[in-house]
Amino acid sequence: MKKITTGQEYINSLRNRKLKVYLFGESVEDIVEHPMIRPSINAVAETYDLANQEPELASATSPFTGERINRFLHITQSREDVVLQNKMQRRLGQLTGTCFQRCVGMDAFNSLYSTSFEIDKKYGTKYHQRFKAFITQMQSQNLVIGGAMTDVKGDRSLAPHQQTDPDLFVHITKRTSEGVYITGAKAHQTGCLNSHWLLVMPTIRLTEDDKDYAIVGAIPVDAEGITYIYGRQSCDTRSMEGGDIDVGNAQYGGQEAMVILDNVFIPNELIFMNGEYEFASMLVERFTCFHRRSYVCKSGVGDVLIGAAATIAEYNGADKASHIKDKLTEMTHLNETIYATGIAASYQSKPTESGAFLPDEMLANVCKHQVTKLPYEISRLAQDLAGGIVVTLPSERDFKSETVGHLLEKYLKGKSEIPTEHRIRILRLIENMTMGRNAVGYLTESMHGAGSPQAQRIQIARQMQLDFKKQLAQELAGIEKQRKKILVNEISDYFGRVFDVNV
Amino acid sequence: MKKITTGQEYINSLRNRKLKVYLFGESVEDIVEHPMIRPSINAVAETYDLANQEPELASATSPFTGERINRFLHITQSREDVVLQNKMQRRLGQLTGTCFQRCVGMDAFNSLYSTSFEIDKKYGTKYHQRFKAFITQMQSQNLVIGGAMTDVKGDRSLAPHQQTDPDLFVHITKRTSEGVYITGAKAHQTGCLNSHWLLVMPTIRLTEDDKDYAIVGAIPVDAEGITYIYGRQSCDTRSMEGGDIDVGNAQYGGQEAMVILDNVFIPNELIFMNGEYEFASMLVERFTCFHRRSYVCKSGVGDVLIGAAATIAEYNGADKASHIKDKLTEMTHLNETIYATGIAASYQSKPTESGAFLPDEMLANVCKHQVTKLPYEISRLAQDLAGGIVVTLPSERDFKSETVGHLLEKYLKGKSEIPTEHRIRILRLIENMTMGRNAVGYLTESMHGAGSPQAQRIQIARQMQLDFKKQLAQELAGIEKQRKKILVNEISDYFGRVFDVNV
Amino acid sequence: MKKITTGQEYINSLRNRKLKVYLFGESVEDIVEHPMIRPSINAVAETYDLANQEPELASATSPFTGERINRFLHITQSREDVVLQNKMQRRLGQLTGTCFQRCVGMDAFNSLYSTSFEIDKKYGTKYHQRFKAFITQMQSQNLVIGGAMTDVKGDRSLAPHQQTDPDLFVHITKRTSEGVYITGAKAHQTGCLNSHWLLVMPTIRLTEDDKDYAIVGAIPVDAEGITYIYGRQSCDTRSMEGGDIDVGNAQYGGQEAMVILDNVFIPNELIFMNGEYEFASMLVERFTCFHRRSYVCKSGVGDVLIGAAATIAEYNGADKASHIKDKLTEMTHLNETIYATGIAASYQSKPTESGAFLPDEMLANVCKHQVTKLPYEISRLAQDLAGGIVVTLPSERDFKSETVGHLLEKYLKGKSEIPTEHRIRILRLIENMTMGRNAVGYLTESMHGAGSPQAQRIQIARQMQLDFKKQLAQELAGIEKQRKKILVNEISDYFGRVFDVNV
Amino acid sequence: MKKITTGQEYINSLRNRKLKVYLFGESVEDIVEHPMIRPSINAVAETYDLANQEPELASATSPFTGERINRFLHITQSREDVVLQNKMQRRLGQLTGTCFQRCVGMDAFNSLYSTSFEIDKKYGTKYHQRFKAFITQMQSQNLVIGGAMTDVKGDRSLAPHQQTDPDLFVHITKRTSEGVYITGAKAHQTGCLNSHWLLVMPTIRLTEDDKDYAIVGAIPVDAEGITYIYGRQSCDTRSMEGGDIDVGNAQYGGQEAMVILDNVFIPNELIFMNGEYEFASMLVERFTCFHRRSYVCKSGVGDVLIGAAATIAEYNGADKASHIKDKLTEMTHLNETIYATGIAASYQSKPTESGAFLPDEMLANVCKHQVTKLPYEISRLAQDLAGGIVVTLPSERDFKSETVGHLLEKYLKGKSEIPTEHRIRILRLIENMTMGRNAVGYLTESMHGAGSPQAQRIQIARQMQLDFKKQLAQELAGIEKQRKKILVNEISDYFGRVFDVNV
Repeated sequence: MKKITTGQEYINSLRNRKLKVYLFGESVEDIVEHPMIRPSINAVAETYDLANQEPELASATSPFTGERINRFLHITQSREDVVLQNKMQRRLGQLTGTCFQRCVGMDAFNSLYSTSFEIDKKYGTKYHQRFKAFITQMQSQNLVIGGAMTDVKGDRSLAPHQQTDPDLFVHITKRTSEGVYITGAKAHQTGCLNSHWLLVMPTIRLTEDDKDYAIVGAIPVDAEGITYIYGRQSCDTRSMEGGDIDVGNAQYGGQEAMVILDNVFIPNELIFMNGEYEFASMLVERFTCFHRRSYVCKSGVGDVLIGAAATIAEYNGADKASHIKDKLTEMTHLNETIYATGIAASYQSKPTESGAFLPDEMLANVCKHQVTKLPYEISRLAQDLAGGIVVTLPSERDFKSETVGHLLEKYLKGKSEIPTEHRIRILRLIENMTMGRNAVGYLTESMHGAGSPQAQRIQIARQMQLDFKKQLAQELAGIEKQRKKILVNEISDYFGRVFDVNV
Repeated sequence: MKKITTGQEYINSLRNRKLKVYLFGESVEDIVEHPMIRPSINAVAETYDLANQEPELASATSPFTGERINRFLHITQSREDVVLQNKMQRRLGQLTGTCFQRCVGMDAFNSLYSTSFEIDKKYGTKYHQRFKAFITQMQSQNLVIGGAMTDVKGDRSLAPHQQTDPDLFVHITKRTSEGVYITGAKAHQTGCLNSHWLLVMPTIRLTEDDKDYAIVGAIPVDAEGITYIYGRQSCDTRSMEGGDIDVGNAQYGGQEAMVILDNVFIPNELIFMNGEYEFASMLVERFTCFHRRSYVCKSGVGDVLIGAAATIAEYNGADKASHIKDKLTEMTHLNETIYATGIAASYQSKPTESGAFLPDEMLANVCKHQVTKLPYEISRLAQDLAGGIVVTLPSERDFKSETVGHLLEKYLKGKSEIPTEHRIRILRLIENMTMGRNAVGYLTESMHGAGSPQAQRIQIARQMQLDFKKQLAQELAGIEKQRKKILVNEISDYFGRVFDVNV
Repeated sequence: MKKITTGQEYINSLRNRKLKVYLFGESVEDIVEHPMIRPSINAVAETYDLANQEPELASATSPFTGERINRFLHITQSREDVVLQNKMQRRLGQLTGTCFQRCVGMDAFNSLYSTSFEIDKKYGTKYHQRFKAFITQMQSQNLVIGGAMTDVKGDRSLAPHQQTDPDLFVHITKRTSEGVYITGAKAHQTGCLNSHWLLVMPTIRLTEDDKDYAIVGAIPVDAEGITYIYGRQSCDTRSMEGGDIDVGNAQYGGQEAMVILDNVFIPNELIFMNGEYEFASMLVERFTCFHRRSYVCKSGVGDVLIGAAATIAEYNGADKASHIKDKLTEMTHLNETIYATGIAASYQSKPTESGAFLPDEMLANVCKHQVTKLPYEISRLAQDLAGGIVVTLPSERDFKSETVGHLLEKYLKGKSEIPTEHRIRILRLIENMTMGRNAVGYLTESMHGAGSPQAQRIQIARQMQLDFKKQLAQELAGIEKQRKKILVNEISDYFGRVFDVNV
Repeated sequence: MKKITTGQEYINSLRNRKLKVYLFGESVEDIVEHPMIRPSINAVAETYDLANQEPELASATSPFTGERINRFLHITQSREDVVLQNKMQRRLGQLTGTCFQRCVGMDAFNSLYSTSFEIDKKYGTKYHQRFKAFITQMQSQNLVIGGAMTDVKGDRSLAPHQQTDPDLFVHITKRTSEGVYITGAKAHQTGCLNSHWLLVMPTIRLTEDDKDYAIVGAIPVDAEGITYIYGRQSCDTRSMEGGDIDVGNAQYGGQEAMVILDNVFIPNELIFMNGEYEFASMLVERFTCFHRRSYVCKSGVGDVLIGAAATIAEYNGADKASHIKDKLTEMTHLNETIYATGIAASYQSKPTESGAFLPDEMLANVCKHQVTKLPYEISRLAQDLAGGIVVTLPSERDFKSETVGHLLEKYLKGKSEIPTEHRIRILRLIENMTMGRNAVGYLTESMHGAGSPQAQRIQIARQMQLDFKKQLAQELAGIEKQRKKILVNEISDYFGRVFDVNV
């Protein structure tokens, strides 16, 4: 396969693949031209184009190929590399106003890179070497990797091997000398149809009894045995109505599908974990560590929503009111809190044994936990500025109809110098981002992606080093009379990172 | 017209009317059978059925007819009447999970009743008497009244008479000895197509130059000269897809339309204000006073959403987790705060000169202001409990398809004893209420209906009696050495109502 | 004892009692003239004077004596009685800017009244009759009752009878034919020294093994065997410095003490529960039900703080800024939310078997739970408006000193027409209410009084009727196809009260 | 003067100075031994000791002296230098649990360094060179610099030259060939008495008419003409009671005083601005930019408070309850949000023309704005965990008295293995930090230091680049059909810094 170099080439690379994709109960022949799917492909295409337009931001030099590669395929070699992921993510959020779906793969790459290194170190296996070969190939061809992690889980109170139906978590059904066969399903996979490869990984901590579930490997998106069932999003069918107004953001959208694996084969050279169940939690935790601060992208999406709110205030002639300005300031304050917590997590990265860098886990969780709340409040404020009309606007077809179009033109007029259509368009964008298709990504995915709020609280609690803090308090309260040396030096502890002076 | 006595009779009463209704650029022939419109009609029908099922709650004895009438048509004779409106509203919110659209008319009736009394007192006009006659007729026939208040407003920085296009606020275009002709448009009218009559009212404080805009009158919904353009809602077309799952709440929904009035005639006996511009603000303020605490309905809708969140937690097998229970408790706490502030506003009602009761304006505004925030947080928590699947669920047609239905049946299973379909249904209901069709009513209408947040802040500020409070502080600080008699006695002041002992 | 009729008579009634009171390690001879204690006595005195000044608000007609009595001693005969308690509480909060300490007794009276009725009904005991006699006597003499409930508790994970030291909960140590002897300690009793009688009650749910702890009885404040150790408050010694500025609120303050009971005798006729352990929880729950909505008093205190904040904004010349006005509006909104939730709880009262009324438990908990948060935010906003000077102001003695007083006069000047001293006084009042002596009552007591936040969450959870709400949701989701009759009729259930039409 | 090298030497260096200090209306002879002042001196002493104990963290190599100097005196040469300030601040917050008072000088140094460079560039003056000489001297001797910025301001609506009393802002009263004389007062100066030098600066944007107010210079703390009037803090006199328990944090405290300047002389070589009024705003903005993210110190203080809350939960035997753990997690989440936003601001520093680095202004404001809220919530949660006893605890003298001490020992016991005194000590520390002396620093100073909340909102609003954001939205909404190059390149703009790839 020739290296893909532009968004257009990427789009073309998705044509003519034999995928089993279902949507509305029917098989989809051509995902590229499907009006409901295409926006999600466009969003990924932006990741290619940005790498050309702003190469410093969106590409990097690979230590494996020695060449400039897309940053989404890069293994972080330094703190700066981790930070630049965040900056690129914000930029793409600004350009697409939605989820551009390529972060899962990036974060999976980076977490598996260091984890496979540590498995090999313990067991003398060859996973890391194989994985480097796979990465090198992906970089050379500039392909899109989807990370397939979230099992459907069944009864949440039971471990994988305890489920009545063993398939509720992806597992090995057969082993041959050439490789393994896996069965199961991954729920709501972001950006799978528009990927080239899927990296299959476990979704939770595993025990010895779950050994068959401890499988990591790469499979092509069009591998035999995979069925995709496309997920519905709020207002999804508007993209099939023919216009470009009611859809809100005509060009870009997200994508999530259920990926059902029925005895899918993974050859040995593409297996990167096989039974080393005790490393499942390391992989999951490193992945979520990367992925939770990847939600900095939402500050880029937030920029768009703040811009939309400021625009509608102006169109309504209300932008001079002090409470309007104050709400825009508040939205900005909240939005930058997302950015700042993410950047701090990336900046406080430390090298793993493999040499690849890992963000600060405490701060990555703090970032994501803010993301489970702040976009909802920004969204609420955007609806405040928009006015009730954002949810009662007549349809695009009414606006364009000969019979009643002129009435809407007349009566939906705001400030006289602004075309009524512009006012409608910006209202539809706000609807799209706060209730419609991209609210899925901006709100609910912000809540649940990379782990639900409670998952972050658990991680924050694990790292909060209460004993250290109690000692601080007890000393000042005069309970511990003698000053102890309380500085934590272990870089693996949070305060070890905080007080590490090698900044 | 025969008195309507059941929901079914009400639905039938809406057939065969000649309405000019547009939706998706086309004329709608039969609103009753239109799948996208019908749910809003069903919701109003509930207001009839409840009056039969729970008459104490949803009906009252009219002082005009002496008969038991629907509470939505009743003029409040006591504090208890005001309180019972709230209780009925919560109940209907529970039964429909949406906006049942009949409160605007109820609140318009009550505010116009006392305002017309005071206009007559000042000017010796006959508006009040005429209006009583109109009310009596409506009660006898048990009809639905839509209140048409919100003008489209154009440039928000200009008064009605200053707009380039005079029609941006509804105004009198011609006066004859029989009545007046009015032109203009009312934006996002809740429940208009499914009403029998519209009560047209001004939307803001008016000045002498706006005299032609100071018009209040009743017009039949099918009056000549009216064009309705139906508003779109998030996910609205799902109701046209044929199933009953993806739509979330198959039976009930809200309705909002733009009402365009082109020289619509109002005969003298149905005119209740005509030029008395200085009473526009009284009417608006009394209406918003009633209507802001009418948002207690959202606590009923909130009951449904809490129930849905508790159900999905149970279906997922996660209902025993302490953080889940805590979130349900928080949702309840917030939901009951809405109810309590509304009930307090109703309970602290006082009689107007006309004898009809008016809720406490401060507390009504406090209630509504909470409603601009709390449902958003309740909704966020519901999405937290639902899990990401709420926005990535495949379609009903996939679930029912022969090809992939069994895969979804297998992989979307939660707790084993719960049918997968039940899990899907409850997730779709949560989607419906937090992003879909009924999120329009539960969230955005909660924000903007009866005035946007800033409107409440202005009213709260007007009534907060800072001078009285300053005096309290200055006395305790020793600045005012001599105790003054600081109890406020005027019932028109907020603290007059607070410390009124006639409870 | 002659009936007390004025605040001054009340103050005199506290003189010359033989109390064992300790403060700063020393015995206090005369609590009435002690500068640190006196403000708390003044606050209670206000409850007498208000009954004279505003009798409708602060007194009631006793069904036992047939005479007008202080409302704090009244057994609620109607919903209106319950509501009027709240109105009186807000008024006293306004007049004192602090905790006036007489609510615990009022709420204890009312909860014991109905509980003793139900014990008698079950066991044929005479507690209720005895208690009525006691109430009648208290009403006739117009005395102050302190409720002594909060045991010191020791190890929170152990039941009373399991503690290593049995005295960590108050219990019976000896029984004679005349009565019982009790030992133990009650922590942070609000208003005990300035009471005439203490009503001792258990603090938690008890089991059969805790029978000796199931004791309720009345003891005079100066009974033999009681030692009081006075609690410190933030900035308490300022009242002993001689001035009236730095103290912030020179006249009024709260009071809390540890009450240590060493074999204190209770004669039979003053015993109102003795071993009926299963009624402990009823008594505690009814008490907290009353007491949690009694925190409406904080809205009165909040009125003072809002007034103080508005005053300092004016003195600084900043009161015209839109953000200042907005913050005052927000403070008011939050403050009225406290009031409204409390009033709603009182209004939704229902009669107990004894005939006395009990507030709505769900709403009482919602009210108190808001009180654990909102005063903190109001306080934060008050500090925002005050400016940093509120915590860096030089002392009153500096201000009055000949050497540097003129410098402070000159440099602490705000708006030129306002005396510098006034500016200082209002700042000291804000300090007093947000960090100083009355912050104890306005903030921390708002948090912990009548149960800490988690206690309210537990009660809210108990009453939230999830099954009813699940049914609502399941029906709308189409899971339950057939409409069930879901209205809850039991008045003992929350929705039974909500939908009770006898308003 | 010999270079100071330890905390003890620093303390000694403060002895025997002739300062005019007033406290409680009296002159203070020896500030070092004054029990109310000493804790603030101890806190600064920690800044010396930490530089010895953790030199990488708390010292740096000066480009001027070539030697290792205290980091508080260092001019930032790199982004890393700016970040390390934050890390040192957090550490000192942990060690002292209070404000250590040396940041104002550090931030003043750094902002004046670059501003004086730019004044010289425009006017050919020699301020920068003089200032470098002054810095070099301070570094060589290792002295403490207090920044004196906040004028008393009088009527906030008038400019300095418009005030009735010209002294309400510090200004030049006389000019001679040797220097200038200044008069006025600086309010609530943090750490002045315990400094060696004061750097006097203007506090607001100035106009040509305010030229005499545009004065920056250094004066020794014991210069002739200065009078200090010590500010009161909540519970300040507890430090004079003799014990070490009730004071909460016996060793450390903050300090704020009013500094009155009466014709104080500044020689030419110590003048760093003199009439260049248009640079006042640059100086103020750069100072607040540094100082607002300096509030990262509060995350260190927060660590202590979280530790205290965790300790009391353990002492009460309540640390296993899920709601307790959840509250500690929430406190940590909020506390780390402060840290993360500050670190991000420091990390996104850029060099000024002088070569010294300046933090990111948007993020510095976001950090400080969070600090005006989050410590209040952390504090509220700490009070929640503490229990009501935190504000009702009897005095240390009672606890130690022979008469009642044993009663408190018995009844204030929590978990049996924890000494009662430990429980009391940790409660007093929580009181100290949430209402007492260190609440001044942790709460109110967090609100007002470096500018009140509105000041941050103004700065955030100035930098939020709405036009850029509007363009993003309009493009996605299809209003701007053609993609424009919207990346902002100017590093002076916020998005220029965000998307700067030189990380």
